[in-house]
Amino acid sequence: MDYRIEKDTMGEVKVPADALYGAQTERSVENFRIATDINKMPKEIIRAFAYLKKAAANTNYKAKVLDKKKAVLIGKVCDEILEGKLDDSFPLVVWQTGSGTQSNMNVNEVIAYRGHVLNGGKLTDKEKFLHPNDDVNKSQSSNDTFPTAMHIAAYKILVEVTIPGIEKLRDTLQKKSRQFLKVVKIGRTHFMDATPLTLGQEISGYVSQLNHGLKAVKNTLPHLAELALGGTAVGTGINTPPDYAKNVAEEIARLTKLPFKTAENKFEALAAHDAIVEAHGALKTVAVSLMKIANDIRMLSSGPRSGIGEIHIPDNEPGSSIMPGKVNPTQCEALTMIAAQVLGNDVAINVGGATGHFELNVFKPMMIYNFLHSARLIGEGCVSFNDKCATGIEPIKENIKKHLDNSLMLVTALNTKIGYYKAAEIAQKAHKENTTLKQMAVKLGYLTEKEFDEWVVPSKMVGKI
Amino acid sequence: MDYRIEKDTMGEVKVPADALYGAQTERSVENFRIATDINKMPKEIIRAFAYLKKAAANTNYKAKVLDKKKAVLIGKVCDEILEGKLDDSFPLVVWQTGSGTQSNMNVNEVIAYRGHVLNGGKLTDKEKFLHPNDDVNKSQSSNDTFPTAMHIAAYKILVEVTIPGIEKLRDTLQKKSRQFLKVVKIGRTHFMDATPLTLGQEISGYVSQLNHGLKAVKNTLPHLAELALGGTAVGTGINTPPDYAKNVAEEIARLTKLPFKTAENKFEALAAHDAIVEAHGALKTVAVSLMKIANDIRMLSSGPRSGIGEIHIPDNEPGSSIMPGKVNPTQCEALTMIAAQVLGNDVAINVGGATGHFELNVFKPMMIYNFLHSARLIGEGCVSFNDKCATGIEPIKENIKKHLDNSLMLVTALNTKIGYYKAAEIAQKAHKENTTLKQMAVKLGYLTEKEFDEWVVPSKMVGKI
Amino acid sequence: MDYRIEKDTMGEVKVPADALYGAQTERSVENFRIATDINKMPKEIIRAFAYLKKAAANTNYKAKVLDKKKAVLIGKVCDEILEGKLDDSFPLVVWQTGSGTQSNMNVNEVIAYRGHVLNGGKLTDKEKFLHPNDDVNKSQSSNDTFPTAMHIAAYKILVEVTIPGIEKLRDTLQKKSRQFLKVVKIGRTHFMDATPLTLGQEISGYVSQLNHGLKAVKNTLPHLAELALGGTAVGTGINTPPDYAKNVAEEIARLTKLPFKTAENKFEALAAHDAIVEAHGALKTVAVSLMKIANDIRMLSSGPRSGIGEIHIPDNEPGSSIMPGKVNPTQCEALTMIAAQVLGNDVAINVGGATGHFELNVFKPMMIYNFLHSARLIGEGCVSFNDKCATGIEPIKENIKKHLDNSLMLVTALNTKIGYYKAAEIAQKAHKENTTLKQMAVKLGYLTEKEFDEWVVPSKMVGKI
Amino acid sequence: MDYRIEKDTMGEVKVPADALYGAQTERSVENFRIATDINKMPKEIIRAFAYLKKAAANTNYKAKVLDKKKAVLIGKVCDEILEGKLDDSFPLVVWQTGSGTQSNMNVNEVIAYRGHVLNGGKLTDKEKFLHPNDDVNKSQSSNDTFPTAMHIAAYKILVEVTIPGIEKLRDTLQKKSRQFLKVVKIGRTHFMDATPLTLGQEISGYVSQLNHGLKAVKNTLPHLAELALGGTAVGTGINTPPDYAKNVAEEIARLTKLPFKTAENKFEALAAHDAIVEAHGALKTVAVSLMKIANDIRMLSSGPRSGIGEIHIPDNEPGSSIMPGKVNPTQCEALTMIAAQVLGNDVAINVGGATGHFELNVFKPMMIYNFLHSARLIGEGCVSFNDKCATGIEPIKENIKKHLDNSLMLVTALNTKIGYYKAAEIAQKAHKENTTLKQMAVKLGYLTEKEFDEWVVPSKMVGKI
Repeated sequence: MDYRIEKDTMGEVKVPADALYGAQTERSVENFRIATDINKMPKEIIRAFAYLKKAAANTNYKAKVLDKKKAVLIGKVCDEILEGKLDDSFPLVVWQTGSGTQSNMNVNEVIAYRGHVLNGGKLTDKEKFLHPNDDVNKSQSSNDTFPTAMHIAAYKILVEVTIPGIEKLRDTLQKKSRQFLKVVKIGRTHFMDATPLTLGQEISGYVSQLNHGLKAVKNTLPHLAELALGGTAVGTGINTPPDYAKNVAEEIARLTKLPFKTAENKFEALAAHDAIVEAHGALKTVAVSLMKIANDIRMLSSGPRSGIGEIHIPDNEPGSSIMPGKVNPTQCEALTMIAAQVLGNDVAINVGGATGHFELNVFKPMMIYNFLHSARLIGEGCVSFNDKCATGIEPIKENIKKHLDNSLMLVTALNTKIGYYKAAEIAQKAHKENTTLKQMAVKLGYLTEKEFDEWVVPSKMVGKI
Repeated sequence: MDYRIEKDTMGEVKVPADALYGAQTERSVENFRIATDINKMPKEIIRAFAYLKKAAANTNYKAKVLDKKKAVLIGKVCDEILEGKLDDSFPLVVWQTGSGTQSNMNVNEVIAYRGHVLNGGKLTDKEKFLHPNDDVNKSQSSNDTFPTAMHIAAYKILVEVTIPGIEKLRDTLQKKSRQFLKVVKIGRTHFMDATPLTLGQEISGYVSQLNHGLKAVKNTLPHLAELALGGTAVGTGINTPPDYAKNVAEEIARLTKLPFKTAENKFEALAAHDAIVEAHGALKTVAVSLMKIANDIRMLSSGPRSGIGEIHIPDNEPGSSIMPGKVNPTQCEALTMIAAQVLGNDVAINVGGATGHFELNVFKPMMIYNFLHSARLIGEGCVSFNDKCATGIEPIKENIKKHLDNSLMLVTALNTKIGYYKAAEIAQKAHKENTTLKQMAVKLGYLTEKEFDEWVVPSKMVGKI
Repeated sequence: MDYRIEKDTMGEVKVPADALYGAQTERSVENFRIATDINKMPKEIIRAFAYLKKAAANTNYKAKVLDKKKAVLIGKVCDEILEGKLDDSFPLVVWQTGSGTQSNMNVNEVIAYRGHVLNGGKLTDKEKFLHPNDDVNKSQSSNDTFPTAMHIAAYKILVEVTIPGIEKLRDTLQKKSRQFLKVVKIGRTHFMDATPLTLGQEISGYVSQLNHGLKAVKNTLPHLAELALGGTAVGTGINTPPDYAKNVAEEIARLTKLPFKTAENKFEALAAHDAIVEAHGALKTVAVSLMKIANDIRMLSSGPRSGIGEIHIPDNEPGSSIMPGKVNPTQCEALTMIAAQVLGNDVAINVGGATGHFELNVFKPMMIYNFLHSARLIGEGCVSFNDKCATGIEPIKENIKKHLDNSLMLVTALNTKIGYYKAAEIAQKAHKENTTLKQMAVKLGYLTEKEFDEWVVPSKMVGKI
Repeated sequence: MDYRIEKDTMGEVKVPADALYGAQTERSVENFRIATDINKMPKEIIRAFAYLKKAAANTNYKAKVLDKKKAVLIGKVCDEILEGKLDDSFPLVVWQTGSGTQSNMNVNEVIAYRGHVLNGGKLTDKEKFLHPNDDVNKSQSSNDTFPTAMHIAAYKILVEVTIPGIEKLRDTLQKKSRQFLKVVKIGRTHFMDATPLTLGQEISGYVSQLNHGLKAVKNTLPHLAELALGGTAVGTGINTPPDYAKNVAEEIARLTKLPFKTAENKFEALAAHDAIVEAHGALKTVAVSLMKIANDIRMLSSGPRSGIGEIHIPDNEPGSSIMPGKVNPTQCEALTMIAAQVLGNDVAINVGGATGHFELNVFKPMMIYNFLHSARLIGEGCVSFNDKCATGIEPIKENIKKHLDNSLMLVTALNTKIGYYKAAEIAQKAHKENTTLKQMAVKLGYLTEKEFDEWVVPSKMVGKI
């Protein structure tokens, strides 16, 4: 394999001849051969770095600590990264240094070397026009850039993927809730027959869960909007020009069109990632909601002949390699698996968040990896579940009616007429002797057939709709 | 043992002669002999029930579905419960029915029977003046009362114990941060020597963490303020008078002086406990912060002679049964154990929250048990840590100075003067040859002694303070 | 309140006049006011300490470093502790020092002072016959006694409560499995109708889960059998007589009649509690099994009229405060809540286990608190579930037959006769046109009525039974 | 894009013209667009399927239910899969149906179509020589093949990657432990100075942890060795020839050279994945150990000048983009991030394992995805940590000596000479007055200088070595 020599403060390193990166990236490639094919540093982080490096260059230029030409070059390479043109230049994995220094240096090196090439230089030139540390990383440290990239990536994925995905599903369920608002059906508590409600009411509960979940997620955005950049090595802002932190955050806000601002306290912003922990606490809440919703829908659609079978969901694919004609609630299954994954990711994030020391938390790559995983799974999972399942929910009225008519819990309507105890007696004896409620009510002499028909009317037991 | 006979819809049951409760409570005592001495239904839940039963009685009276005399009697017993007079009458455990029905009935029975006694009756009377179901539980179901009690108890403990506890610690750390604002010390990233900051800055990070945590907890209060009451059996509000849900929530708000209101969607409020999941997500965020803070403080105070030893914390007790004179950071240890517990409780709550079915989540007692546990541990743990540790934090200036002066990372101040690479060479060689930075800088000829003294000044490396 | 003065190496402390404990216990009472009414140090730990203190005294006596009279006195008090006579003398909570030193000293003080009284002395005597540190704690440190108590308590509860509880449930399910071995019923995969199996087969899966779980738990006993005692302060065994570690472990084994032995490596035994982490990993596996089993049973028994309703479980109590006559699977609910709790406890234990430093893990009380909680919940939960639910499981043959006869998945029997694709066509069309399988099979001309009757026989589709 | 038409029981589907897969794979591609670039079904599962499909074909041939020619063709394609030649033909993601049916069909289709091509056919042929369901999937169901693939993949990765990785690290630490057996150093408990031990003893604790962890992992292998294959749809073995389950397991054992055998109870093997839960319980125990070990090593090597600094670890890369010359314990950081991830994965697995219903657990892909992730991270993480860190551990004797000599806890040696209380007085006063122990001991008159020198000898305080 062809290579060239690059060097860093520790000495010379062979790197692949055409690699845009340099010595420090190559060291990390060699030092961390862990899950290399499945756990690359998420591309969302690389893109977030591109925003912040460009913003830093612009801010450094305005503060007169960086030449215009250098700043422009840096910005150009950042644009290429954002367009996805340099994806192959970021080979590092999540399981590296816990500060993400090596990924910061990977970005610094690629920007410096690609910028040098854009400026007419060659990769093999000993001296390059841009220096990874002194130019690209100017007024920065891994310790403030990586957490900044974490917040940019986390904020962006929430507003671009997660929230829209949840909203899409919420909107469909909202529509279904209205559509089935008058479909009276049996309720079930403790998985047992209970008093009736409508299918629309039942679904409205899911809508309410998702609305609360959306609110919970949005409540965490302000903390994520706070950026560490400007804190540099330990939070004091050493080696930054005046007002740098404020200005660079504004520049990032301008570039991303998102309301980022400089963190009030940089010491927290480097040493702890409570914003990630907190925001993922909202994501796990949504996961809990999705587990409930998807479970209900799978159970309500169970059968087709020997289950509950009160709703129909789309038949998307053959469900069994051995049982011919079988169809399964596969979208529910994917969504509940996603929910379980998010509950696991939450614990990984908690452990990482709790285990920082002094001026730096060094579980950064692991934390953001799990965060982005969850955010994306929820967002894309909701869209998939929406498009391939929720939009096709339809009541199976025949089964709904059968279950409703059979239910002994309609007796509850009699509480206010004859008291709880006599009502209980009716239900218990009807169950034991396998009669209808009406038959038993009349037999016991507690009310007349006419009273029963007047008092026990499922559609009047569902409240205002 | 003396007993009397009580009955419910399933028949007769022997209960202890002087027990204020009745058949259903006794059945639960007998059916659930699980961790009976350590997992009683939390007293906070019993007290919350007292508020809601009184509010329900008042509301029922105003709605003209309950006699004034009965309403007043119910209220009187509720007051006794709130005063702690009837604590022995609630023998049930957490590990019962997942709806908490049995604890609801326990409360109903105690109110009915104690009310009957207050009304001049005897426990052995066959007919009692108040009926547990038809009077005390009127316009209610376990399915809406238990989640209402959960929210009342959760909200109350957060505002009465958890938040004040965190604030107390936050205030002390705030004060310490200001007090030590100019104590320049070495920073540590990756647990390794880094550029300096002040002890006050370091502590300000903890303050910021707690402030964000407080905000996170408070963000979840509105969801907890929503009450399920009025949803009754499945959320439809069957067997409630008009406007009952709204009115009873207002009555609870009046009695508790907390901003409770009726939940917009009762179906969610019975079938899911996302509000608990969400609020505990904020508590686990605080736990993560506390783990970081307590770990830092234990490590900074380590020694006394062979550790880091930069702060002193109070000597509270002999630390060892074998090592004479040993003192340990025991408050840090209690607080980090608490943090670990809260991270565990979070998972229990998530699993419970995710596993509801249809119209009812039946992990209610387990969920609120864990929530109250965490809320109390954090609140009381912060107070203990504050009173017995944080208030006594003092810098050990001798060690701080020694560490600061030794640090090779002061070299960072030279980046903007001589570039990152030359600065690195100075630090590396000084390390290897065991010299001071100044000696090596001058030896390598990169700067003069005078320049060094002018450029490398720790107190100027800590930013604006 | 009456008090007397006790002192320790830090000075004088007022303790309640009749308290058997001394200064260090009192300090802890005052320093750790956290969850005092609900989180006392588990009594299992106090009892375990009694075994080990007696064993240490005996071993010290044999090694001639303790007088016979003192050893005998210590043993006598230990016996009183084991008989539960001194329960009130152990007021400390879990949330104390992470080494459990204060509980060790609590035990030391109670033994010393009660021993002094048994020897004819008075609590107010300045000098007592037994010294908490020099006599009762001789050849010991908190650092080796507390982990020893952890292992004794954990091992005992597993073999006395947890394993017998699981076995009891396993035996009942085994019996039920045999009893219902020929009750052919529909299978369900993906919660959807599938090919048949027998109720006995279905239950045999639960039996197999529990058998594997029991094996998993038992696999962890050897690690728990290893005792730290003899490692003293940091694992080196400082201040112990020759062969003390080995001898004291044998003495504990003799007293407890359990196969304890001295840990091969004392450094691990103090600094890490992987044995607890590992053993709880088995408990969480059992919790996962119990969740599955209890969920299945609750769903199979759902109804009574609008659910799956294939089995009947005992009616234990009225299930609803509002819905008359309702009965719920409450034992399933308690058991699934327990399972959720154990999954949470597991995380607390993991976090504690992972966060030890150097020679000592200081999450000891929290870890053993959670361990004992889980072990007891599983043991007592299984017994409750067994006695009040599993023993009463009966098939509801009418529903079983109805579901079986309706199932379209019986078509699977035709795969080997006419191929998967034609079989699928039959099932799909029968579903669409709402016919029986036989009707559609014949209509499509793929087989004759006679062939159908011969080939599609549920009882032949369940394999060897 | 070029495509051809394939069909399944639901109708026609366009698939890419040169894809080796068919209609069902394509449906899954379209139905599950979730995390498509990062969460492909793990290659370990695809390879495991190749073993089992080949074994099934061979067994079917021997049972005379499959032609020799077909069996041979199937085997050939399986060999190609095992050689990695067909990796691009498996595009499906983890987030699909919870039974993994679609990946089973993906494998069935690829084998059938590639086999057809090997047999001289064309992908565009309507009828192919091999049928995915009737030939490749003969005597199988997704419900027994996917769990079989899970166990094959899990067992293989444990014995090929995880266990060797742990053992490699264990061996290095073992060697280091012996090498440093006589390097006496200060012990630390509660992160505070304690009595001495040797560096070799300290490291021996890590060795013991890993040895116990290895034992724990190995204890779970027998459960993983049990294969579901032969259970087919619901565990009854419908549509299998006689003795198929036993024979196919033996064939898999033969092909993989691993001790697989048929599961005694197939109902468990489909409906629950307790073996995965149990085995991952062992992996999380190892993760807990690794967190402790890596934390200790990072803290012991902290500095270089203002930390604990008792050991040196290799300098692998520049540690900071801003602080010149900084080096960090990056391998410790990667390993602790891995540990945190495994603790999270454990919870995802628990939730999935607990949430199966009736005859099938449908969290299969998620569970095995997490399992393989953990197993690989631990295995590869240990190797990386070993090669780049552990092998280079060296004591820094100067610091070790300084810390040891300073320690006040050497006073413990005097307990047996002058009693705990006087010893405490010496240590406390030496601390307060900043003297040495000896100075204070003599000053207080409790012993002579000579006695001190004779009694307080660190190298004699470390026990037998």
